[in-house]
Amino acid sequence: MKKLEDYVEIIPDFPEKGVIFRDITSVLQDKEGFKLAIDELLKLFEGVDFDVIAAAESRGFILGAPIAYELNKPLVLVRKKGKLPRKTVSEEYALEYGTATLEMHEDSVAPGQKVILIDDLLATGGTLNASAKLVERLGGKVEKIICLMELQSLKGREVLKGYDVETVIKYEVN
Amino acid sequence: MKKLEDYVEIIPDFPEKGVIFRDITSVLQDKEGFKLAIDELLKLFEGVDFDVIAAAESRGFILGAPIAYELNKPLVLVRKKGKLPRKTVSEEYALEYGTATLEMHEDSVAPGQKVILIDDLLATGGTLNASAKLVERLGGKVEKIICLMELQSLKGREVLKGYDVETVIKYEVN
Repeated sequence: MKKLEDYVEIIPDFPEKGVIFRDITSVLQDKEGFKLAIDELLKLFEGVDFDVIAAAESRGFILGAPIAYELNKPLVLVRKKGKLPRKTVSEEYALEYGTATLEMHEDSVAPGQKVILIDDLLATGGTLNASAKLVERLGGKVEKIICLMELQSLKGREVLKGYDVETVIKYEVN
Repeated sequence: MKKLEDYVEIIPDFPEKGVIFRDITSVLQDKEGFKLAIDELLKLFEGVDFDVIAAAESRGFILGAPIAYELNKPLVLVRKKGKLPRKTVSEEYALEYGTATLEMHEDSVAPGQKVILIDDLLATGGTLNASAKLVERLGGKVEKIICLMELQSLKGREVLKGYDVETVIKYEVN
């Protein structure tokens, strides 16, 4: 039987030279692969008491939405600057060159709520760390950070130190 | 009991002056609202024989993913230019000012497959029409186009003439 890893395509030099891209679209476009991905992620939610799922733009939406629906939880979005229509809080974070800004709606997490952050990939941890900061600025507690894939060599877990991080597929080298 | 419409927030002048934005994030961030949205969409899939769900970036992902998971179908993505890592077909379409380009992976739809296109909003129909053309260039058949909301005054259905279009919430005026 095919494992989840077998559905992930490896694309060299995307989006730029030297980067080895782990493509989840090849997982999604196979009905067995997609089911396996969501089912494996759902296992990481078992027994966790939480209120809200926060998903990072835009591949995080694809994983967060089925899980929120299955578990009957609210889905809130972490988006790039300017995409959310209502009042937001924002957080800037460093990229390799320059910075980027993420936003969440002010009313998307209530003080005291327990939030699970979800994204497709844990790489350097920059996006997820900024997302966690946004949740906390709204008074929420980051109960867990869950990703489908992790590039261990980029040491995202060090950036996310203090958070409970779980990932399904772990790649040792980038 | 609250209806689905009651969860949609109306934002005047977003993303630009004169536009009345219908915000689905207020639906998603309420667990009853999100469940209702997906359940209402699922009704439009009942009895339809199809192979693949194609979702348009990026709010379409949020609606397409839970449905693909529920119905155990593949999910394929329609994305803006440069976002998909493997070999793509692309389609340019007109915006109010200038043009935009959408892409799908070449292997995301096989010749003869029946595809259901999903997005959050039917407005002018430009995005959905370009998406339908992409599916057809891959040899697929657009079995149905399904959206959560429709702005009837923008006459997207005229652009999508010949396709079977179904929407959950219909707004008469923009």
